[in-house]
Amino acid sequence: MDTDSLVDAVENDELRLHELEQHADADVAAKARRQLLAGDTDTDFETIGEYGFEAAVAEPNIENMLGAAQVPMGVVGPVTVDGGAAGGPTYLPLATTEGALVASVNRGCAAIRAAEGATARVLKNAMTRAPVFRVEDVAAASETAAWVRDNVDRLAEAAEATTNHGELREVTPYVVGDNVFLRFGYDTKDAMGMNMATIATEAACEIVESETPAELVALSGNLCSDKKPAAINSIEGRGRTVAADVQISRDLVETYFKTTPEAIAEANTRKNLVGSAKAGSLGFNAHVANTVAAAFLATGQDIAQVVDGANAITTADVRDGDLYASLTISSLEVGTVGGGTKLPTQSEALDLIGVRGGGDPPGSNADELGEIITTAALAGELSLLGALASNHLASAHEELGR
Amino acid sequence: MDTDSLVDAVENDELRLHELEQHADADVAAKARRQLLAGDTDTDFETIGEYGFEAAVAEPNIENMLGAAQVPMGVVGPVTVDGGAAGGPTYLPLATTEGALVASVNRGCAAIRAAEGATARVLKNAMTRAPVFRVEDVAAASETAAWVRDNVDRLAEAAEATTNHGELREVTPYVVGDNVFLRFGYDTKDAMGMNMATIATEAACEIVESETPAELVALSGNLCSDKKPAAINSIEGRGRTVAADVQISRDLVETYFKTTPEAIAEANTRKNLVGSAKAGSLGFNAHVANTVAAAFLATGQDIAQVVDGANAITTADVRDGDLYASLTISSLEVGTVGGGTKLPTQSEALDLIGVRGGGDPPGSNADELGEIITTAALAGELSLLGALASNHLASAHEELGR
Amino acid sequence: MDTDSLVDAVENDELRLHELEQHADADVAAKARRQLLAGDTDTDFETIGEYGFEAAVAEPNIENMLGAAQVPMGVVGPVTVDGGAAGGPTYLPLATTEGALVASVNRGCAAIRAAEGATARVLKNAMTRAPVFRVEDVAAASETAAWVRDNVDRLAEAAEATTNHGELREVTPYVVGDNVFLRFGYDTKDAMGMNMATIATEAACEIVESETPAELVALSGNLCSDKKPAAINSIEGRGRTVAADVQISRDLVETYFKTTPEAIAEANTRKNLVGSAKAGSLGFNAHVANTVAAAFLATGQDIAQVVDGANAITTADVRDGDLYASLTISSLEVGTVGGGTKLPTQSEALDLIGVRGGGDPPGSNADELGEIITTAALAGELSLLGALASNHLASAHEELGR
Amino acid sequence: MDTDSLVDAVENDELRLHELEQHADADVAAKARRQLLAGDTDTDFETIGEYGFEAAVAEPNIENMLGAAQVPMGVVGPVTVDGGAAGGPTYLPLATTEGALVASVNRGCAAIRAAEGATARVLKNAMTRAPVFRVEDVAAASETAAWVRDNVDRLAEAAEATTNHGELREVTPYVVGDNVFLRFGYDTKDAMGMNMATIATEAACEIVESETPAELVALSGNLCSDKKPAAINSIEGRGRTVAADVQISRDLVETYFKTTPEAIAEANTRKNLVGSAKAGSLGFNAHVANTVAAAFLATGQDIAQVVDGANAITTADVRDGDLYASLTISSLEVGTVGGGTKLPTQSEALDLIGVRGGGDPPGSNADELGEIITTAALAGELSLLGALASNHLASAHEELGR
Repeated sequence: MDTDSLVDAVENDELRLHELEQHADADVAAKARRQLLAGDTDTDFETIGEYGFEAAVAEPNIENMLGAAQVPMGVVGPVTVDGGAAGGPTYLPLATTEGALVASVNRGCAAIRAAEGATARVLKNAMTRAPVFRVEDVAAASETAAWVRDNVDRLAEAAEATTNHGELREVTPYVVGDNVFLRFGYDTKDAMGMNMATIATEAACEIVESETPAELVALSGNLCSDKKPAAINSIEGRGRTVAADVQISRDLVETYFKTTPEAIAEANTRKNLVGSAKAGSLGFNAHVANTVAAAFLATGQDIAQVVDGANAITTADVRDGDLYASLTISSLEVGTVGGGTKLPTQSEALDLIGVRGGGDPPGSNADELGEIITTAALAGELSLLGALASNHLASAHEELGR
Repeated sequence: MDTDSLVDAVENDELRLHELEQHADADVAAKARRQLLAGDTDTDFETIGEYGFEAAVAEPNIENMLGAAQVPMGVVGPVTVDGGAAGGPTYLPLATTEGALVASVNRGCAAIRAAEGATARVLKNAMTRAPVFRVEDVAAASETAAWVRDNVDRLAEAAEATTNHGELREVTPYVVGDNVFLRFGYDTKDAMGMNMATIATEAACEIVESETPAELVALSGNLCSDKKPAAINSIEGRGRTVAADVQISRDLVETYFKTTPEAIAEANTRKNLVGSAKAGSLGFNAHVANTVAAAFLATGQDIAQVVDGANAITTADVRDGDLYASLTISSLEVGTVGGGTKLPTQSEALDLIGVRGGGDPPGSNADELGEIITTAALAGELSLLGALASNHLASAHEELGR
Repeated sequence: MDTDSLVDAVENDELRLHELEQHADADVAAKARRQLLAGDTDTDFETIGEYGFEAAVAEPNIENMLGAAQVPMGVVGPVTVDGGAAGGPTYLPLATTEGALVASVNRGCAAIRAAEGATARVLKNAMTRAPVFRVEDVAAASETAAWVRDNVDRLAEAAEATTNHGELREVTPYVVGDNVFLRFGYDTKDAMGMNMATIATEAACEIVESETPAELVALSGNLCSDKKPAAINSIEGRGRTVAADVQISRDLVETYFKTTPEAIAEANTRKNLVGSAKAGSLGFNAHVANTVAAAFLATGQDIAQVVDGANAITTADVRDGDLYASLTISSLEVGTVGGGTKLPTQSEALDLIGVRGGGDPPGSNADELGEIITTAALAGELSLLGALASNHLASAHEELGR
Repeated sequence: MDTDSLVDAVENDELRLHELEQHADADVAAKARRQLLAGDTDTDFETIGEYGFEAAVAEPNIENMLGAAQVPMGVVGPVTVDGGAAGGPTYLPLATTEGALVASVNRGCAAIRAAEGATARVLKNAMTRAPVFRVEDVAAASETAAWVRDNVDRLAEAAEATTNHGELREVTPYVVGDNVFLRFGYDTKDAMGMNMATIATEAACEIVESETPAELVALSGNLCSDKKPAAINSIEGRGRTVAADVQISRDLVETYFKTTPEAIAEANTRKNLVGSAKAGSLGFNAHVANTVAAAFLATGQDIAQVVDGANAITTADVRDGDLYASLTISSLEVGTVGGGTKLPTQSEALDLIGVRGGGDPPGSNADELGEIITTAALAGELSLLGALASNHLASAHEELGR
């Protein structure tokens, strides 16, 4: 069917808005959908409809497609980092609508380059899924937990049979009354891995149900914990736990940030540590989510997982007169295969970084991406802390000048 | 300068990558930048460069522009909600790369429509900014806090002089040793309002510094708390606190979700309440961040604020045999003017909803947007809970059939 | 009845164990109870039965009395503090079973004295009670919250009619779906005030129920939040929010703690700030609960409220070469009248401090007690941080000596 | 020296207040101390001085002794529980100053007995200590963490050489920038075990320092986390994680609590689950700390650890028309040897329960104590929820009667 026929069919209640792709190719369907809604709502879909790819490539990613959201993409770098996987300078694309963000992160990257680069490491790597089971009573809960601890091998066998790449690393039982939660942690290599983890866990759950008195209530019991601000992630990690740090000389701090190591350290302590403590926060940082969100959007990550990527602690101290600063993100969920990474602008962005597709060895591309994002986020922290601290110095100077 | 000249100038170190817009229009600059990085990194920027707007319109939103990220946009609805501002059915565009998300939210919207719509209310509205000050000791801290409590009028006068629309609603002092945090809360009408709040707070801080012994350390002291998972937001709110609920008959639950009110209520209690409790979470919900992120991306909101939008509690109970479900998002930061809302695809998306630009009365468009997003997120909760509960029923049925 | 008759009556099922006080005085009843249980369990109640007061005086505090627990009580001080209410040196009794605790706090007190005393202030004072109401839907929730905000005066009138001393300071509504929580905050003067707050709130709830669609479900809805580790208390306070601080010269730090201001500041940052951040904690301190618990036990406070008293942040920084340290306890629930304060050893302990009974002006005795406990807890923080830091120095020294 | 000589010596500055035990026996020293402070402060120490044991027995537990705090002790029970260690009915002594607490817990115990008893299990058992180390950078942090994971055996050998009973169960590394935290978890059998864990960890730290680049900063880095409200404890446990539950028929609910299973379940959901969620709490219960505190005080536990004992989740649901309720305390730190358990009233209290001293097998006495306290706390939850729910019913009844 062509666009007009689709429009007619919907208007005559012969088709529903989400069924158009069954009768036309994806671009035509999207066009018809825009035409239908434009009429209803007096909306001009000119730009939403002007996307630069064939709609069919997005079919695994969207339903009821209208077109595409277009978000300006800038670039920062080179990001210079000595990582476990990353090495050498790399450009990082950031998509955002927040003016000054790219410039701010870029300033931090320049300071880090001048300081001969950051160091970064992936400290842990485990994508988790935690089903919840119902049991009769706490005796059955205890029994189930004990059975699981004794049979991790059987669960791994069942789980890993569902995947080519994933490896089950750990299963931790948690009991609350007649609820048993099992937190499965997988190495999902270069995939962010949530689907892989879900499918593998479902297979393992069948074993648990057949061998213990536990009955599955929900494949996710919120101890995973996906896209929710949760201490279990900030403590135990989810996806990759990544840390980056840098030592910047006093001169470079003054050159790049117009302030002193002491002023940055003080701002960090009062704001990121004490302020966050008083706020009841899991995020002891200035604006890590900004860099994470912009990098996630550019590279096809799941942007709702920015929630987990904000579980981050920034430290800043004076060391021998210089500035030492670090950033540790506990639950950075990144991948270079699957999900949104195959989409056109997203895969081009991964190409720019040099981490498109599976790594060699497997997992190394996602490791590298994690280390680069964390280093850029550290740059963003330095830049904002520097701005806050130098404003203060500025006002102090004015005061002295009176 | 034309593209080639820009490229030459950078390669000859006469210009830096971020300076191109000073010598050419934004599209040419972005093209040169792509050409430079393509050469360095062997990247094909074909789609990133094929954005559907003039780069100049994005200048307030981006630096070092390469082009645009393009994310598939679908649509859900009509979302039927009786709100404080929203009324009548509305379509909501969602941009995402997560397959099945749009379909899932849409299924929930269909159930809500069949149930004659949801109810929604904006319960609180205050964009916050919380500077941190240094004082000599706890006596000075106490004195400063007392002065602030007694002089909110003066602070409001100074703050409101910087803005046409914003109103200072409250200033709450918090003391930790020699740190004084002042949490300013503003009604910023249809703007998300963070910049407005920051500028107004800066003006108020000058009064505080001149009248009390306190010295400003950082304009944001993390009790705001912006883009960090923080209990102060989940308790006191930030931006808009919005609740939506619906009562769905047993028949409709079975029709739309293939399960029962009891099974959905049980899954919600064990997963969203008990599971989240055990996880040390501030997010007692299934996947609210998914809907919030997709709606934020489509409508030009700040996607890093998805972090705050995940502070949400879902409840589900059986009422007289039917299902009652609610969703309360404590810190949903939305606007219909400013920021990314002016960009082309984003403003078209706001047009589709009918909330582009300032509302009448001021604030009503952002209220409406908040109520619609919350209702759609409730739809997403219902749909996922239904899927979890029915899978379980399915497996129970298979078991019985053996 | 005499002891033997009581014992016989219980053994013959004519009386139940908790009914003895109806037939004999409290000492005889307790003796009979000991005799009955001793026989059953082969327990020697020699010391439990050897309490130093008439059992009748404890009747408001205990049921099914056996005797008394006896916990060793030591003393620290003088505690030297310039407070809002406290002034001049005071001894503080501490009851504990943890060896070295009294000595450790006492060492900190000596350092504070040598540094010419601490400064302390009560920053906020509000005992809270937060009932939860059920409403039909979020529209009714919004309506109820609005009514409450508009009618605080009527609620205050009803609440204050139940008490001679209490004053209603604030009522804050919080909504989650069809739940409305109202957090009432009272100035309860020298009483810890939970009973007063509960009774007053019950009266206010009747007004709410008669004037709004809300129905009371539970007089406490856990936003109070009493005896639970809750961010609402660590952020907004409960009972008294008290801060104390001190500046100690480098020489005195070395004399009293065998370490340097830098080493103490470093230990505080790494342990109390960064460590607590990573632990997902609301307690950014070393062992404040130790001092609070021992002082609460000695002075007749409610020891289960030690939970809330652990919501505390310790800071330590180097200032001009000296050590500046502060402690802020957000929810310290203390009283000098009512509850356990009338019991014999407890009222003697309050006498020692000089704060027994109601203060002049009302509230000043409880303020003073709060300031003294917080100062002693700061002393305990200094002493433990010093010990940790000097052990480390010691081992470093040994290393150098090899 | 006799009392008068001691008094004279202090008044003449020949002795300091805390040195008296060097020159007299403990009772004489305490008497002299009372006499000195009585003179200074006009305090009558009559009851504080009338303790029922020789002061010398308390020497390991106190310094600067004045006498003893005496707190009324009641008894509840029999507590009927089918536990992993506990079995059969047991009386539990509770020391408290909160009137009605003993009666309330006792009412819950009666209901549990009528329902043929509760079930309880110790789900996990690990006393933790978590030192913090300083490293050069994140590369060294990663290296240190890896070394630790590979060398748990060596750390166990060093740690266990310091103790007769303790066993090292696990060592988990956590990294934040240049901080490495190692959380050591021990089975400390019948001891609460903090001292044992500290000493053993100190020995293990020496190995870490000699084999890795890490330098110890503090033996406790707050990831332990002792006596602070911390999510790491509510998630991973500390000391014993214990759960208890019971099913009570509708008739018994009505008989004992004057309400229905539905009303108790509703109060629990709205208050303990939703209310605690909104409060940002780690304690999803009504008043578990009350029972834990009173049992800790009676039996010689460390009362500051009531903080950790409040990390508890209560659930209540309707099952086939009856009430199912559970309580899970994640970090209940109990022992039957060491610490305050040897003191006279405390060891008599342990005798009453039948768990004084080491168990057979080792650990079983502390397990039993944990199960009994948790069951009694569950009884306290039922009783308070019942009271809240029945008040509500009462008011509903009045309303109907109008």
